[in-house]
Amino acid sequence: MLTLCVHHKDKGFTCQDDLSKISDCLADPSNTVWLDALDPSAEEMSLLAEEFGFHPLAIEDYFTPHPRPKIDEFPGYYFIVVHSVSFAPESDEIAPEEFDLFIGRNYIVTLHKSPVPLLERIAETWQRDPRLVTDGAGMLLYDILDGLVDSYFPILDEMEDRLDEIEDEIFAQTAPKSAERIFRLKSALLVFRRIATPVRDVLNTLLRRDQPLLSEHAITYLRDVYDHSLRVADSIDTYRDILTGAMDAYLSVISNQLNSVMKTLTVAATVLISMQVISGIYGMNFKYMPELGWRYGYLGVLGFMAAVALGLLYFFKRIKWL
Amino acid sequence: MLTLCVHHKDKGFTCQDDLSKISDCLADPSNTVWLDALDPSAEEMSLLAEEFGFHPLAIEDYFTPHPRPKIDEFPGYYFIVVHSVSFAPESDEIAPEEFDLFIGRNYIVTLHKSPVPLLERIAETWQRDPRLVTDGAGMLLYDILDGLVDSYFPILDEMEDRLDEIEDEIFAQTAPKSAERIFRLKSALLVFRRIATPVRDVLNTLLRRDQPLLSEHAITYLRDVYDHSLRVADSIDTYRDILTGAMDAYLSVISNQLNSVMKTLTVAATVLISMQVISGIYGMNFKYMPELGWRYGYLGVLGFMAAVALGLLYFFKRIKWL
Amino acid sequence: MLTLCVHHKDKGFTCQDDLSKISDCLADPSNTVWLDALDPSAEEMSLLAEEFGFHPLAIEDYFTPHPRPKIDEFPGYYFIVVHSVSFAPESDEIAPEEFDLFIGRNYIVTLHKSPVPLLERIAETWQRDPRLVTDGAGMLLYDILDGLVDSYFPILDEMEDRLDEIEDEIFAQTAPKSAERIFRLKSALLVFRRIATPVRDVLNTLLRRDQPLLSEHAITYLRDVYDHSLRVADSIDTYRDILTGAMDAYLSVISNQLNSVMKTLTVAATVLISMQVISGIYGMNFKYMPELGWRYGYLGVLGFMAAVALGLLYFFKRIKWL
Amino acid sequence: MLTLCVHHKDKGFTCQDDLSKISDCLADPSNTVWLDALDPSAEEMSLLAEEFGFHPLAIEDYFTPHPRPKIDEFPGYYFIVVHSVSFAPESDEIAPEEFDLFIGRNYIVTLHKSPVPLLERIAETWQRDPRLVTDGAGMLLYDILDGLVDSYFPILDEMEDRLDEIEDEIFAQTAPKSAERIFRLKSALLVFRRIATPVRDVLNTLLRRDQPLLSEHAITYLRDVYDHSLRVADSIDTYRDILTGAMDAYLSVISNQLNSVMKTLTVAATVLISMQVISGIYGMNFKYMPELGWRYGYLGVLGFMAAVALGLLYFFKRIKWL
Amino acid sequence: MLTLCVHHKDKGFTCQDDLSKISDCLADPSNTVWLDALDPSAEEMSLLAEEFGFHPLAIEDYFTPHPRPKIDEFPGYYFIVVHSVSFAPESDEIAPEEFDLFIGRNYIVTLHKSPVPLLERIAETWQRDPRLVTDGAGMLLYDILDGLVDSYFPILDEMEDRLDEIEDEIFAQTAPKSAERIFRLKSALLVFRRIATPVRDVLNTLLRRDQPLLSEHAITYLRDVYDHSLRVADSIDTYRDILTGAMDAYLSVISNQLNSVMKTLTVAATVLISMQVISGIYGMNFKYMPELGWRYGYLGVLGFMAAVALGLLYFFKRIKWL
Repeated sequence: MLTLCVHHKDKGFTCQDDLSKISDCLADPSNTVWLDALDPSAEEMSLLAEEFGFHPLAIEDYFTPHPRPKIDEFPGYYFIVVHSVSFAPESDEIAPEEFDLFIGRNYIVTLHKSPVPLLERIAETWQRDPRLVTDGAGMLLYDILDGLVDSYFPILDEMEDRLDEIEDEIFAQTAPKSAERIFRLKSALLVFRRIATPVRDVLNTLLRRDQPLLSEHAITYLRDVYDHSLRVADSIDTYRDILTGAMDAYLSVISNQLNSVMKTLTVAATVLISMQVISGIYGMNFKYMPELGWRYGYLGVLGFMAAVALGLLYFFKRIKWL
Repeated sequence: MLTLCVHHKDKGFTCQDDLSKISDCLADPSNTVWLDALDPSAEEMSLLAEEFGFHPLAIEDYFTPHPRPKIDEFPGYYFIVVHSVSFAPESDEIAPEEFDLFIGRNYIVTLHKSPVPLLERIAETWQRDPRLVTDGAGMLLYDILDGLVDSYFPILDEMEDRLDEIEDEIFAQTAPKSAERIFRLKSALLVFRRIATPVRDVLNTLLRRDQPLLSEHAITYLRDVYDHSLRVADSIDTYRDILTGAMDAYLSVISNQLNSVMKTLTVAATVLISMQVISGIYGMNFKYMPELGWRYGYLGVLGFMAAVALGLLYFFKRIKWL
Repeated sequence: MLTLCVHHKDKGFTCQDDLSKISDCLADPSNTVWLDALDPSAEEMSLLAEEFGFHPLAIEDYFTPHPRPKIDEFPGYYFIVVHSVSFAPESDEIAPEEFDLFIGRNYIVTLHKSPVPLLERIAETWQRDPRLVTDGAGMLLYDILDGLVDSYFPILDEMEDRLDEIEDEIFAQTAPKSAERIFRLKSALLVFRRIATPVRDVLNTLLRRDQPLLSEHAITYLRDVYDHSLRVADSIDTYRDILTGAMDAYLSVISNQLNSVMKTLTVAATVLISMQVISGIYGMNFKYMPELGWRYGYLGVLGFMAAVALGLLYFFKRIKWL
Repeated sequence: MLTLCVHHKDKGFTCQDDLSKISDCLADPSNTVWLDALDPSAEEMSLLAEEFGFHPLAIEDYFTPHPRPKIDEFPGYYFIVVHSVSFAPESDEIAPEEFDLFIGRNYIVTLHKSPVPLLERIAETWQRDPRLVTDGAGMLLYDILDGLVDSYFPILDEMEDRLDEIEDEIFAQTAPKSAERIFRLKSALLVFRRIATPVRDVLNTLLRRDQPLLSEHAITYLRDVYDHSLRVADSIDTYRDILTGAMDAYLSVISNQLNSVMKTLTVAATVLISMQVISGIYGMNFKYMPELGWRYGYLGVLGFMAAVALGLLYFFKRIKWL
Repeated sequence: MLTLCVHHKDKGFTCQDDLSKISDCLADPSNTVWLDALDPSAEEMSLLAEEFGFHPLAIEDYFTPHPRPKIDEFPGYYFIVVHSVSFAPESDEIAPEEFDLFIGRNYIVTLHKSPVPLLERIAETWQRDPRLVTDGAGMLLYDILDGLVDSYFPILDEMEDRLDEIEDEIFAQTAPKSAERIFRLKSALLVFRRIATPVRDVLNTLLRRDQPLLSEHAITYLRDVYDHSLRVADSIDTYRDILTGAMDAYLSVISNQLNSVMKTLTVAATVLISMQVISGIYGMNFKYMPELGWRYGYLGVLGFMAAVALGLLYFFKRIKWL
């Protein structure tokens, strides 16, 4: 489904489904055109290609899934692939949702397979307050990329919460599933990194090349988004390093636990078998075992067993095995 | 075996085995020549060298196996080495099959030791639809490299499936062979990376140098292949990182298992030996052991043994060892 | 709360709360203006924006928390984010406190949510010895950045002390909490690195761009701060490498301990059960067991048991298990 | 010992020990001079320095051992250090043998402490087929460097064989020495890398600088050697990564083995001690133990013990511990 | 204490304590001045600052300890910080000793807190053979830096010896302290790297900038020192990689040892307890146990026990647990 919204300098935003007038609107440089294509059919795509003059490769690119953001420069416009992301904290899974952009001097075309709440929210602001849409398509692009990168921060926060949980778990030694949780969170970070880090390069391309598409004003704002994308990349890397450290620490903690289990076993086995050895001796059937006839032999042996047991326990206590 | 196909502007593709007219065909810039050499003999190679004017080093290079792709620039043509790849999921083995290309302004020469299905498939398309072959040899090169890089994606998908299997295995703790599987898949990824990543550099060379061989049109298309090769390299790196994490996690899982085995052993040994200690005591042969004469001594001791055993089990349950 | 201090060439520093004369002060290039904003309200921020002509994005940036330092270049001024840091050695926690700076040719504006002792200390020096404030705002900036980076060194020293403690602990094998301590210190280093390392880039930007804001004199001094920031980054990286090595070593130490625990268990079990086997034999109830009737059978068996035990102990001693 | 060989355009190669005519030979640019110095004395070195005009530092460099290749540029000539290598597969040891080269427009000087078979082999070819020596010293240098780098490939192949052996060993779990073998092969790779990788940089220097020493023809050939050196470096890195993975896998394999040993111990101990507990009960000396008087008590208890043992074995089988 | 030595073209080196004539000496460009400051007081430092015109920051830098080498460029001179190093092989500790240099066109100033044997040795050579001091201060600087970097090689050799010792230890499985030794040597390498590697950058700065201070002659010699510093950095990195591998190998070795300890325990426990089970059976007090009355029952049971024990031992031998 294609939706066409045109921003006239004076009239503000007007949206409609009639696409026949795209070229007229584009012809007037004081107009800013926003065309949103929700799951466009091949026919609608070729209409777009024709009206805007898009390269067949870019059109083809829309139909191929892209696991990482990218920017392609074409004469007079850019083709940009980015991803909105949602994170399911219980399963530590990252669910990326790709959407594509064409950005020209006075138009922006957004393409997506399913509705993207982020885009809807941004479009609403534009309609509510058309004064935001100044300076051609550059500020529209800023709004979208800024909203996108800012939507990454709550996910980073959730991930940091998970990281804190995992840390507590590891050292509290209560959860035998920590290895799995560390691994899942790390894999999620890797997927997230693949989606979030190249946004930095997309912005870099927009900022660096001496291109005439974006106004100086828009570039100043995009530089701010670039800063935010640096922070995202930076946080992801820090979290990964912490998780790697956590896995190492976890292995040490398990080994330590094993050590203490083995110490317990050693203590139990040594104490109990020592007692058995004594009782075993007095279970022998020799004819001449004077102790067997003693009046307090039995009690004495019980006492001896207790003494040996306590002595061993004391010994193990002293060498810190208990 | 050499096969010569010539594309005339109007006549479309015609293939033949008669090689005597190569130079005539090449002389007309509106022709596009495709020569396919299947396991060429040394004589056939020197024929090629002569007709096309290839450098002896490039000819020699065909006879040396190359474990990694490369591109050599010669005046008027490029020599390119790439690999088609097949993946055997049961053994996690990557089987690369090298093939070489000469690409000039209006000719492309493909060299391979054994039939390459990928090439055959591409050649078929050319013959079916000669309109695809426009713009000299550049678009032929695009078809081949695009087909090559696209053939890497199904392998990546298979590898991802394997990765998912391994993950499930590790945490389900059913498969003692996980270390081997992780290692084999990782080694396969390293081999694949050696074959797939330098394709990026080959394309970079084709795109970056200000060379007059490829038309602007072909370069736009090759840039798209370059994007795809970036995605391949990117996915390989992500999978490797995940596999490294998986190996670490696996080690933790094994250690955890060991911990729980040892706990079981400790519990069993402690409970059973405690019971033995008691029975051992009443197996002693002392004359004066009043309990031995008691009417319910035996039952009492059985009860006591059971109580000790249950008490210990309860204790171990409470400290979460059971 | 905004505090305005103006340094007149002859009159030295005078501070006041009356902000109405900011623009007059700024107009005279021989004045150096320092404005300190402690937790400024939105109104105060827009006053600043107006008087100094700051860009709305920079103003907005003040209200966003920044986990890493950065520098933004605007026409005629810089916006800088840095962090003062405190370290709690008992919990190994790094507590960063962000503060922001605007630096123009003859003014410096400091913004912070809570009082920053470092800034107060520096401002005191300025008021005590106004001759320090020469050469416009450059030297003020030097004082702040130099004080900031120098405040990182005591933290590095404390961290090194902690590192030494941990090392001693690991090899003395007394502390089962080493894994946690290594992990916490490493995480603290990662956080510290995120705060301290980009200061290097901030200084690099101030030094490299051919900007007309800072005098040659100030740049010479800032180059010195840059050197210090290199040392900080360098030390952090060295400590991280040592901690990684420490974690590996710790794992080896635990495994070694486990080895020796298991050896002890093996020795104890083997010796004690061997004694049991002997006593068990003479506990059997066969009718015809000649040894049972021997006069010194009992003593002989006790002696045999002792001999077996000592023999085994001697054996284990020789193979270094004891 | 110095050996002087001169290649006259028409006369081919003539070798002699008379060094008095070096300068005459060098003076004629159509000659190509090859001087081989086998363990030259200090006097011979100063003779060289004088005749060829070598810098004292380069002369001094010959007497210092160099663990890594290098190239020094002097006006009119290069000084190159490279290493031929032999590999002892049984001990996994790399034995490098340094040799040095001076290369000028029409001369090449080779210096080595002991005879280098590689050089001897190359020199033989020159003498057999003088037509190879065209184009001044550049092609001589090509022959030497090409021979050197190609001599690295058999070593790589041997290393790959060793790697395959180690892999098989690890997962067949037969060899307890795998850790040592992995470590030794990895150390050998590190030494090899130190020798083989910088050859790449030596060639890069020869290729990149706009130097007038080497003809275009020689440079085309050296570029081919450069490609080979890239393959060497690339293979070494791949092998290292695989070895690192192998060590990780090996640790997992050992841990897995430990797990299965411990499970066996647990099963054995539990089954056997359970049987003991039962026999221990009927070994007690209570007066009133009705079972003791039963006709089939003994058989019944034996049966009960067998049943308990089998039951436990079945249980452990079901939980996959056997 | 300040010592002033002046090298006159014809008179050679003359040293004295009278500092009043520094400026006169400096004024004549054919003189080369060397001033050595052993633990200079603040007064002496300000004298230096005045006579040579040093920047206050450089003077201040002398009083700050620097853990890593650096070079600062000032108009007309450089300020260089380097470290001489001693290594205590028994404790694996690196003890760096900082010393600072000012180097101008015709003077060199050396500053150090305590006597530096290296400097004394170099100064002696100068006085013995003044012809060495040609070409202004450049060659003095070369002598010092060359001596410094060359003093790193014996330390590298000692470290390599230690590394070999550790390797032998690990695989001979005799030393339980290997983890500590690996860790200490690795930490020493990290400290050494921090001191030795930046010397490379110091030399790079001296070589690269188009500075008029050093003659072409001196630069050729410094390039040689640069090569040496590359070798130092390269060796340190190789040793670190080997040590990392050694730690991994050590962990595998310990785990292997644990495996064999556990196998021994399992064998011992299984064999001994099996024997106990048999003797336990005949220790039961059933009335009707026919075997007990057999004439050779006792011997038969002893034989049976021996047979079971031998059978188990044979079994464990076959599965390679013994």
